[in-house]
Amino acid sequence: MFTYGAPSAAHVVAAPGTQILLPLVAALARPGRAAVLMPSYGEFTRAASFAGHDVAEVDGLAAIGDAQLVLVANPNNPDGRLFARNDLIALAAKLRAQGGLLVVDEAFMDVGPSGESLAADLSGGNVVVLRSFGKFFGLAGVRLGFALAAPKIATRLSAMLGPWAVSGPALAIGAKALADAAWIKKTRNRLEGSAKKLDGVLTNSNLDLVGGTNLFRLVRTDAAGELFDHLGRAGILVRRFPEQANWLRFGLPANAQAWRRLRIALAGFKQSG
Amino acid sequence: MFTYGAPSAAHVVAAPGTQILLPLVAALARPGRAAVLMPSYGEFTRAASFAGHDVAEVDGLAAIGDAQLVLVANPNNPDGRLFARNDLIALAAKLRAQGGLLVVDEAFMDVGPSGESLAADLSGGNVVVLRSFGKFFGLAGVRLGFALAAPKIATRLSAMLGPWAVSGPALAIGAKALADAAWIKKTRNRLEGSAKKLDGVLTNSNLDLVGGTNLFRLVRTDAAGELFDHLGRAGILVRRFPEQANWLRFGLPANAQAWRRLRIALAGFKQSG
Repeated sequence: MFTYGAPSAAHVVAAPGTQILLPLVAALARPGRAAVLMPSYGEFTRAASFAGHDVAEVDGLAAIGDAQLVLVANPNNPDGRLFARNDLIALAAKLRAQGGLLVVDEAFMDVGPSGESLAADLSGGNVVVLRSFGKFFGLAGVRLGFALAAPKIATRLSAMLGPWAVSGPALAIGAKALADAAWIKKTRNRLEGSAKKLDGVLTNSNLDLVGGTNLFRLVRTDAAGELFDHLGRAGILVRRFPEQANWLRFGLPANAQAWRRLRIALAGFKQSG
Repeated sequence: MFTYGAPSAAHVVAAPGTQILLPLVAALARPGRAAVLMPSYGEFTRAASFAGHDVAEVDGLAAIGDAQLVLVANPNNPDGRLFARNDLIALAAKLRAQGGLLVVDEAFMDVGPSGESLAADLSGGNVVVLRSFGKFFGLAGVRLGFALAAPKIATRLSAMLGPWAVSGPALAIGAKALADAAWIKKTRNRLEGSAKKLDGVLTNSNLDLVGGTNLFRLVRTDAAGELFDHLGRAGILVRRFPEQANWLRFGLPANAQAWRRLRIALAGFKQSG
């Protein structure tokens, strides 16, 4: 039984994507002050607001204050910032004392340092860990995600989702893919290699690496807007960030042709810059 | 654009099954008294309770009283009871005057009298119609369902579901199947013929027909328990109802072999009875 490291199947809730879980998870905390560690995934703030929380976007664990609900991505998207497991355990204990809930979205932990996962540390009863199927396996359209939590919370989330929450194709594909330990290991290694290769391509183009995970890299450049347009004209979509105008997030090129296209496009930009 | 008869695409919300929508729809009404028209689908009471309502199970529209939320299946499951469109429109108007919400689950309207659908009567702003994809198309595992409602409600339900609620396979299969008007018409006719044929087989076995839709038939017999066991031993699963000990619901046999198996099993029961 694959549980992402959670103690038992009773700690695991399957859902049609973690995104549909977010408002339900946010509703587990009584409406109050919520803190979202930013910059991060935009759905955190939306889901917490939807569940009736007064959301503060904060830039570090020290700024959480008296929030009853804390949402953090670990590793973080888009900058890859990693929160130490022990720091999150301490935060959960502090929140527990005041009846609060810690939500850790480990959507990118499949390519992260798995020792930092909180999946095995759910016994305090006020931690929900979210895991995504689609990112690592490249099958986001299947809609499959999981919440890991103490059985009491897991039972409540299951009841909120109701029976038959996950499609037959997602159940079949997910069960087969998650059991394929050899493919998972090989793919982790391949992605690590590709991420390092991408770092080389990006730094070679005088782009400053900010961070990332082994599924994407984040760079900082004053020419972010122009480079975004230039790459778009070359058929390469990178991600911009409304509140960080000099950031661009690059996904991993999928094949030799895509690597070549990226190299040529970046070289063309340097020449015209 | 296929909208089940709703005025526009802005009235339609796609979801991974109507079942996951039920607690969200129930939460659109402020917590108060809810009335569920029974006997019906067990998830109605569960969803309304989950959303904080005090649920009364009532046996007719006259018994709704001052409920703020009314849930009804039309046609009803399992007995096929049909509520007249005009009666439901009048009920919606009455509920509207007291700030209440009417939820009509039309999961079996694909094989029902489509003129009784409330899909085109959403302008009052306090009606939600649910439509299921999987029942008529025989693809329940795909997880696809719809809410039809005034755009203000539809927008709120969409926001509650969040982006990417429906899987890629469900989107592709649903779009293709719902656009196939010829197959839909042919299948409606085929199911009508099969349902009539099933009526003949059941009444020929001295079972009293209670009702049904063209996807299932409901019979009443004092030997319901024994017949359930007898059919089960023959590999035929029918549905029992905890609160109606003398009811059995029969699905349509899928092919010639299944028809033959049903006929033989029923004949064998008569002989031993």
